[in-house]
Amino acid sequence: MISSPDNDKLKTIRKLADKSWRDKLDRFYAEGEDLVEAAAAAGWEPEFVLRAGEDVEPRLLAEVSALGSGTRAMGVYRRRWSEPGGKVSVYLHGVRDPGNVGAVIRTAHALCDGPVVLGPDCADPYSPKAVRASMGSIFARPPAGGGPPGNPIALDPHAELLLGDAEVEPPVVLCLGGERAGLPAGLAARAARIPMRDGGPESLNVAAAAAIGLYELAHRMAGHG
Amino acid sequence: MISSPDNDKLKTIRKLADKSWRDKLDRFYAEGEDLVEAAAAAGWEPEFVLRAGEDVEPRLLAEVSALGSGTRAMGVYRRRWSEPGGKVSVYLHGVRDPGNVGAVIRTAHALCDGPVVLGPDCADPYSPKAVRASMGSIFARPPAGGGPPGNPIALDPHAELLLGDAEVEPPVVLCLGGERAGLPAGLAARAARIPMRDGGPESLNVAAAAAIGLYELAHRMAGHG
Repeated sequence: MISSPDNDKLKTIRKLADKSWRDKLDRFYAEGEDLVEAAAAAGWEPEFVLRAGEDVEPRLLAEVSALGSGTRAMGVYRRRWSEPGGKVSVYLHGVRDPGNVGAVIRTAHALCDGPVVLGPDCADPYSPKAVRASMGSIFARPPAGGGPPGNPIALDPHAELLLGDAEVEPPVVLCLGGERAGLPAGLAARAARIPMRDGGPESLNVAAAAAIGLYELAHRMAGHG
Repeated sequence: MISSPDNDKLKTIRKLADKSWRDKLDRFYAEGEDLVEAAAAAGWEPEFVLRAGEDVEPRLLAEVSALGSGTRAMGVYRRRWSEPGGKVSVYLHGVRDPGNVGAVIRTAHALCDGPVVLGPDCADPYSPKAVRASMGSIFARPPAGGGPPGNPIALDPHAELLLGDAEVEPPVVLCLGGERAGLPAGLAARAARIPMRDGGPESLNVAAAAAIGLYELAHRMAGHG
């Protein structure tokens, strides 16, 4: 049982809270029994798993965990990346909030067959917050890196075209930009909007918009549209 | 210019980080210029607003803010509650994450005409995290309190009926339960599900599910369904 904060595994976890160390070591960690189980269910071999009271004193695990004293397990894994593809997938551009990136990874895993492709200026999908927000979907469907896709349909609240009227043929990539920066001009040319009420907010949260977009595209691809 | 941490306004803000003080004082605070502006745009008169460098030393405002050193303004307001109503509204039951509660308030403001009704065991919509996640929609459309509604359509991943096949007549209330506890049995009787891929996650995030549900209901109410 690990009883010293100077233990090498604990040191590794501490380092992996930082993006620069995740890049250097090509590793990340997942916090919580549910995520460690999701990794195992998806066939990921951990570098190591620490369980509170079995492998490590609970207070030491709590110290390295963002979840704090409730944490019962943490696992360290090598990062993986998918290739872009699928009949329907998602491209994110400048989505800087890790909770949103993780939430979109989870929603895409539920609603479409392709991965989430992360363009420039997105939050690291392997940051602790993004991994947690993915609720394990990051293991089942790792994200891809890459540039803007070939057959996009971009969600933009200022577009003329309604999402429900957009012509879509597989393979199609739902493109969403950050809430402040929006999408690059090339993608905005193939844009549609989600109908919103007058007098409401100017935009939806990017994770909410992704959910609606993927629901609509899944519906069309199933031939009901 | 406030230069002492013992100033009464700063003390009030510190207290309002706690639910018990929000209940006792019937006040809450909003952090950030965008939220203070959203309050003004919605016609809310603040109890007071503190602006960094104008009313208060920036370091003192940063100390009471969850946003930290970037905070330029904080406003304190009296809480307000809407009455349930509208052709389409939302009922949440046991949604404990304040970020999700705030996100649903924002999405409902964009997509439906009724407020979000908060049932038992929901996060406080006036907590700092929920207010921030609402992105100002909490001012434009304050939430309502109350029990399960009269004409519900509940989202439940285990329902037989597909959401797209559910019969809905206004006024209709989209009901969502917490991710762990789900919905009470009475609501589960009028349930439908969002179609999800086999092998994907068991459920969607509650804010993603609410977005899809409201998009579908808005579409039906517009007479296109």
